[in-house]
Amino acid sequence: MTTQVAWLAPICAAIGIIVAAYLGSWVLKQNPGPDKMNSISLKIQQGAQAFLMSEYKLLIIFMVVVAVIMAVALSPITAIAFVTGGVLSAAAGYVGMYVATRANTRTAYAAEESVAKALNVSFKSGLTMGLCVASFALMGLSLWLIFLVFGVNLADPQLMHENIGMVEGFATGASAVALFARVGGGIYTKAADVGADLVGKVEAGIPEDDPRNPATIADNVGDNVGDVAGMGADLFESYTGAILAPTILAVTFGSLGGYFTEGDFVWTIVVPVMIAACGIITSIIGLFAVRTKEGADLHKALNRGTYVAAGIEILVILAIFAIWQSQSAAAQPVWLFGSVICGLVAGLAIGKITEYFCSDHYNPVHKIAAAAETGAATVVIEGLGTGMLSTIAPICLVAFAIIGAFFCGNMAFPAATIEGGVMVGLYGVALAATGMLSNTAITIGVDAYGPVADNAGGIAEMAGLPEEVRDRTDALDAVGNTTAAIAKGFAISSAGLAAISLFVSYQATMHHYIENFELTLTDPLIVAGIFIGAMMPFMFAALTMGAVSRAAHAMVEEVRRQFREIKGIMEYEAEPEYDKCVAISTSSALREMMLPGCLAIVVPVVIGCFNPAMLGGFLAGAVATGMLLAIFMSNSGGAWDNAKKYIEQGNFGGKGSEAHKAAVVGDTVGDPFKDTSGPSMNILINLMTIVSLTFSPLFITIQNLL
Amino acid sequence: MTTQVAWLAPICAAIGIIVAAYLGSWVLKQNPGPDKMNSISLKIQQGAQAFLMSEYKLLIIFMVVVAVIMAVALSPITAIAFVTGGVLSAAAGYVGMYVATRANTRTAYAAEESVAKALNVSFKSGLTMGLCVASFALMGLSLWLIFLVFGVNLADPQLMHENIGMVEGFATGASAVALFARVGGGIYTKAADVGADLVGKVEAGIPEDDPRNPATIADNVGDNVGDVAGMGADLFESYTGAILAPTILAVTFGSLGGYFTEGDFVWTIVVPVMIAACGIITSIIGLFAVRTKEGADLHKALNRGTYVAAGIEILVILAIFAIWQSQSAAAQPVWLFGSVICGLVAGLAIGKITEYFCSDHYNPVHKIAAAAETGAATVVIEGLGTGMLSTIAPICLVAFAIIGAFFCGNMAFPAATIEGGVMVGLYGVALAATGMLSNTAITIGVDAYGPVADNAGGIAEMAGLPEEVRDRTDALDAVGNTTAAIAKGFAISSAGLAAISLFVSYQATMHHYIENFELTLTDPLIVAGIFIGAMMPFMFAALTMGAVSRAAHAMVEEVRRQFREIKGIMEYEAEPEYDKCVAISTSSALREMMLPGCLAIVVPVVIGCFNPAMLGGFLAGAVATGMLLAIFMSNSGGAWDNAKKYIEQGNFGGKGSEAHKAAVVGDTVGDPFKDTSGPSMNILINLMTIVSLTFSPLFITIQNLL
Repeated sequence: MTTQVAWLAPICAAIGIIVAAYLGSWVLKQNPGPDKMNSISLKIQQGAQAFLMSEYKLLIIFMVVVAVIMAVALSPITAIAFVTGGVLSAAAGYVGMYVATRANTRTAYAAEESVAKALNVSFKSGLTMGLCVASFALMGLSLWLIFLVFGVNLADPQLMHENIGMVEGFATGASAVALFARVGGGIYTKAADVGADLVGKVEAGIPEDDPRNPATIADNVGDNVGDVAGMGADLFESYTGAILAPTILAVTFGSLGGYFTEGDFVWTIVVPVMIAACGIITSIIGLFAVRTKEGADLHKALNRGTYVAAGIEILVILAIFAIWQSQSAAAQPVWLFGSVICGLVAGLAIGKITEYFCSDHYNPVHKIAAAAETGAATVVIEGLGTGMLSTIAPICLVAFAIIGAFFCGNMAFPAATIEGGVMVGLYGVALAATGMLSNTAITIGVDAYGPVADNAGGIAEMAGLPEEVRDRTDALDAVGNTTAAIAKGFAISSAGLAAISLFVSYQATMHHYIENFELTLTDPLIVAGIFIGAMMPFMFAALTMGAVSRAAHAMVEEVRRQFREIKGIMEYEAEPEYDKCVAISTSSALREMMLPGCLAIVVPVVIGCFNPAMLGGFLAGAVATGMLLAIFMSNSGGAWDNAKKYIEQGNFGGKGSEAHKAAVVGDTVGDPFKDTSGPSMNILINLMTIVSLTFSPLFITIQNLL
Repeated sequence: MTTQVAWLAPICAAIGIIVAAYLGSWVLKQNPGPDKMNSISLKIQQGAQAFLMSEYKLLIIFMVVVAVIMAVALSPITAIAFVTGGVLSAAAGYVGMYVATRANTRTAYAAEESVAKALNVSFKSGLTMGLCVASFALMGLSLWLIFLVFGVNLADPQLMHENIGMVEGFATGASAVALFARVGGGIYTKAADVGADLVGKVEAGIPEDDPRNPATIADNVGDNVGDVAGMGADLFESYTGAILAPTILAVTFGSLGGYFTEGDFVWTIVVPVMIAACGIITSIIGLFAVRTKEGADLHKALNRGTYVAAGIEILVILAIFAIWQSQSAAAQPVWLFGSVICGLVAGLAIGKITEYFCSDHYNPVHKIAAAAETGAATVVIEGLGTGMLSTIAPICLVAFAIIGAFFCGNMAFPAATIEGGVMVGLYGVALAATGMLSNTAITIGVDAYGPVADNAGGIAEMAGLPEEVRDRTDALDAVGNTTAAIAKGFAISSAGLAAISLFVSYQATMHHYIENFELTLTDPLIVAGIFIGAMMPFMFAALTMGAVSRAAHAMVEEVRRQFREIKGIMEYEAEPEYDKCVAISTSSALREMMLPGCLAIVVPVVIGCFNPAMLGGFLAGAVATGMLLAIFMSNSGGAWDNAKKYIEQGNFGGKGSEAHKAAVVGDTVGDPFKDTSGPSMNILINLMTIVSLTFSPLFITIQNLL
């Protein structure tokens, strides 16, 4: 076994890119429909394009500033890695959105024929982005690893360790872009959504996506920049983090501690990228599993595609560990398969729990709907309570997964465990996260076709297509909700697992360079760090919720103004100024994303410069409350959304009743919860952890100066 | 210096009890007014009495069960201490409520004459409870300490350490009763309040406290069982915890580590009760400062009373440290004064910040009120965001206070610091909490006259007294809000500081008995513990909010039923069945308080039995998110409340406008936030920490068996 085998990763990534190119061009070749549909799509394309370009301009300034700081404080190569991570993430988001904003009208046109055809177009558009995200990330990351880590003299531990520190720049870049994309996109989409709903639906009484509503184009653009580009960047960074975390840990323990035999060491550092490489191939196989069933029940075929990909991937992972086992004298790597299984079981169970709390088939959502009978206040109380309750099981599952994966990790390296203290088992914890996210490509495919279908519905409405087309696109939204919930479970638990691994790498690195560096819970500095860290997600949630509320307010004012000042809108005689609403969403989102985004980078660096041990406590506190708020906010929001839908199905008085009005209040409160603040939490956790790790050489320098 | 000086504590406590008896009998001697007032008061007395008796019956069963477990698992003396702590807390609450439910009509009657007279009656009623709480707590705690700790051979460290473990039983009993009293009282009062408002004010359109409303007596009983008895038990336990924490720490470090000289050791264990003893006397002096100004501006006089008491107490604390310094060879105890100042500054600042976020004089509340113009959803979002934002500064202040008090603590014991590692400085952190809460008696007095005035207003309304009487009692509510906010700041920060001290004692104890016991943040079990601990306050908030929502629902149904079935209520021809509403609140509160209360005790014990290190992580996580949720929920609730009042003052459309309706939704959401879930968090933190400490001998036994 040599590290040459790591070249498998860029090769598989290249295959992924080729397939993505094929899928994307297939989607673009579909009929975009008549001009009245295509022209609406064109407006959405322009709006989305304009937003991304403005966002990228801001991000370029931000990245240049950070890169210069990194080049000075750390090393020029770290800075370059940082930039490549950011650029590749942005590129994947751009391609995904390019295809998605063109797939919408093609899906709507296909929906005139059949649901199956429409699903095919939208799913392939989603998978295009999925493959781009996974392939770009793996390509960039694996090449950096090959050149800086796998390719150097493995007998020079110090060099390897310094070099992996540079690769961390790549993950930092990806995480930073992800945070801005998620927060910016989340503010954009919710400002447009709330603005369109409050004035259009509630005040003017016109239906959703009505062409008379000035905010309707902004609303449809929002679906793309939030749920497509934002989600893509989000998963780009989780995926990068999950692949890199075990490698960092292996290099840290292997090079600084020398706990592995030489043969095992090569395996430990190469296995994560190999698992990821195989994941791209199995995702492509999953696509074929979907294709063969095109005529039949596509809902089942779609899910089967996901499960086929996941099943093959699990077998591949087992095979990799078995080969390693056969070559290893000192280790029992098949135990690591147990670690991966711990992660998978926790992720699946969390997905099911998420579904239980958010789906309108179960008790929690029914109770929220019932609370609507006594008014908006009880809906809000019940929804907040439900979200908080829903944290119990996921948090316990993550805790058990950590303990289980750790135990398996320790069993895998019996010799190293004795030599290196118990910490080597954490490699298993890190690998559990890798396993969960290895099928990211097809997961994104299943997730990202939703907004395309949503957009298609909007176009159908605006272009005045027959009712049945709209019904079909609405039906598409319902397909694959289960898999989407499971993807959410994976995202939350993998963020927790990866964060711990990175956190331990941070501690091990510091311990190596700074004498007496210990993270004991009784050190007041560390306790103070935990408090401040635990506060960060609250601050972040407050800032992002405030941003949505301000942006939505501006949008409401603008829509009211247009209804008031432009004569003839209501009679379809004058066209609303769509572009003004798009401009408001764009500028609000860009302005409001800067403060929370920058704080997430600056605060950990400042604390680390002051005291690296305090930063350790800070990270532990931030990970704990970050996960809690992520689950709480996402699930409260989801449950409110479905409680409203449950009432709209005719329960508790149905649409238009007092109960429905109360449920709409809950749903509106839930909008920033589930689409802005909640989904940013995972990125926040990962970003703060990887920033701390990347800047650790600076902290060490400062400590040694003191 | 001998430990004999500790007898000062029970002597001062006895003085406090005598003064309380005098004040209480003075209040009872006041004119209760004509029969139509007194008969309403009588109904409230009966309702409150009935609730407390039912609650105590449940608590007796609970305490007997826990005491038996303690007697078997720990020691019979621990069990007896546990029972005395619970009984004294309940007794203080009972006396306080006995006087308060009789002071209400007397305050109303006095208000017919002047505000000043009414304030005098209600403040003395509050101070009666304040002195009972502080004196009962100090009496019980100091006697246990004198007999079990101060009186034994100080040269036998093992014995001292075992014996202080038994005294911890006292604090556990106090905390357990406090949790049940707070949660039960909080559910009671909010169920009655929400029920009375939703049907009476909103549906039937009758004013607050109207005698036609069947829930109005329950509402007034609720003020007493929630804000009087619940608050008293709450402060009983914080006060006990704050006095005991430094003593435990001193015994642990002194006896197990031998870090202090013999002379300093006596001082370290005796100083906390001495500070508390002086606090009772200064509170009484504060009362006299209020008395001399009876004719003049009572608002200022009242505040002056509080500040006089606080000022004298600070000087006394300084004097105590100066005397210690003059007798000590190795230590610099005057530095500990710095620790106390750190705590006081943080507490004061947090109080001011609380006022900024919750008062209708400042921007945050104005913004929530402005958000009411776009509906209930934006009010809720803005309020949640405000509450989350308001956590930033208090958490940072607590963190800085910890660091500052710790630094001063280290400076106080230079020799011990070198010998004993850096941990000795934590004695300073613990003492900062003691200093903050030493004036608890007068603090409660200022806090507890509010509900009495509130009740007096209710009686004035129901008895049909002239409008001006009601205006006067309403004005009383406004007096002393600033001091109440500062008291809240002290409660939150002292809970944080005391929890850390207890937490460190736990670690030191475990470290002494279990080999290799370390709380390092990189141990996966500890990380898993942090996650689960951080989740506990979320679970607790969810359960208590759900309880309020269920209880309020039952109350709404009952009030609607009475309006429907009892003919002539609206025409004052038939009297509503007040007792049925009282019974619903009582049974709901008692039923719903059991699960969250028991979980708070069972979960830490189970985790500790499984793994004591994991319990360490658990406590750290629980303290961090507990403080965050306490601040977030209390401040959101307070801000919503005042935003509604701000609109009622005529802003944004005033009473009856759409904005007002939206603000009422926010206020109702805030009810369980600020009066049930939020205020229970401090107790939850303290209870889980002290339970862990008390049961630590059991954990040690189990670990040694394995």
